[in-house]
Amino acid sequence: MITQKDLLKWQKKALTLLRAAEIVVVPKEKSSIEIADFGLGQFEQTGLAILVYVNTERCCAKELAMLPRQTCPEHRHPRINRTNPGKEETFRCRWGTVYIYVPGTKTAKPKAVPPSGREKTYTVWHEVVLRPGEQYTLAPNTLHWFQSGPKGAVVSEFSTRSLDESDIFTDPEIQRIAKISK
Amino acid sequence: MITQKDLLKWQKKALTLLRAAEIVVVPKEKSSIEIADFGLGQFEQTGLAILVYVNTERCCAKELAMLPRQTCPEHRHPRINRTNPGKEETFRCRWGTVYIYVPGTKTAKPKAVPPSGREKTYTVWHEVVLRPGEQYTLAPNTLHWFQSGPKGAVVSEFSTRSLDESDIFTDPEIQRIAKISK
Repeated sequence: MITQKDLLKWQKKALTLLRAAEIVVVPKEKSSIEIADFGLGQFEQTGLAILVYVNTERCCAKELAMLPRQTCPEHRHPRINRTNPGKEETFRCRWGTVYIYVPGTKTAKPKAVPPSGREKTYTVWHEVVLRPGEQYTLAPNTLHWFQSGPKGAVVSEFSTRSLDESDIFTDPEIQRIAKISK
Repeated sequence: MITQKDLLKWQKKALTLLRAAEIVVVPKEKSSIEIADFGLGQFEQTGLAILVYVNTERCCAKELAMLPRQTCPEHRHPRINRTNPGKEETFRCRWGTVYIYVPGTKTAKPKAVPPSGREKTYTVWHEVVLRPGEQYTLAPNTLHWFQSGPKGAVVSEFSTRSLDESDIFTDPEIQRIAKISK
């Protein structure tokens, strides 16, 4: 549950991050920035701000703005139906640093630390580090999570259609569609 | 036909435009920038530089860098097969100005001037002006062309898969896949 006051506060902070990345946002987009706390109510720890540019039946583009050491929790984008094998995503770092974790050989000394008390819900540990201009493409249905570095991060996401309500999270306490209190 | 010397020259210029737009490009991407002259051999007039970030079976993202008053000639992205109705594109202006022309009411005093001698191959005249942070989505198979403003433009394109060889141009002299001389 996010209060209106917190929504405005985090949208403002997200705009500061987008500005740092030199990404121009038009006035009408500012209030459309989604503050996703995944239902845990600990946005600074588990969450991210999302500016969706376009999300059609076929493709999607957005900017993700992350506070320092903020985590997008482990999840996957499963097959939707016979013709849609699930969401495919490319992450391109624009500003700051982001550590992405995917299935594969466990990285010996990972740079990210999972949110306290929720360590058991982080199960994939092969680390991919993205700095500005670096990118990584994820196949559909691949478990992944990511955390920003010490100054935060701005990451562009290019993908097939986003169907957030279909995402499957490892943490059973998570609900993707945030509730905002009046 | 583009010479190796011109290819390097225009790639360098494209990097200057991308830098103006504060877009970070990693070293290995620099030589991958496509210099598209549409086979007309007049790149400064009819052409654009393209940095493809990703182009999978399902989606595509790229940056378009345009010299001042440069034109991407009129074309459409036709249906490919039963399941692919043609490429869908969203253009988001990042830097400079771009004038896009699509079917619809002819704009009384359009800001773009078609390349000299090729005016007859520009048939759609409904103008959409994009400044930084503004964007426009084109349905598949829609005729369109665009020209940058007086200082050039950098435009992000988010789309379904790019199949350039399938594009249909109004100008019969155009060939999309450029030849580079050795």
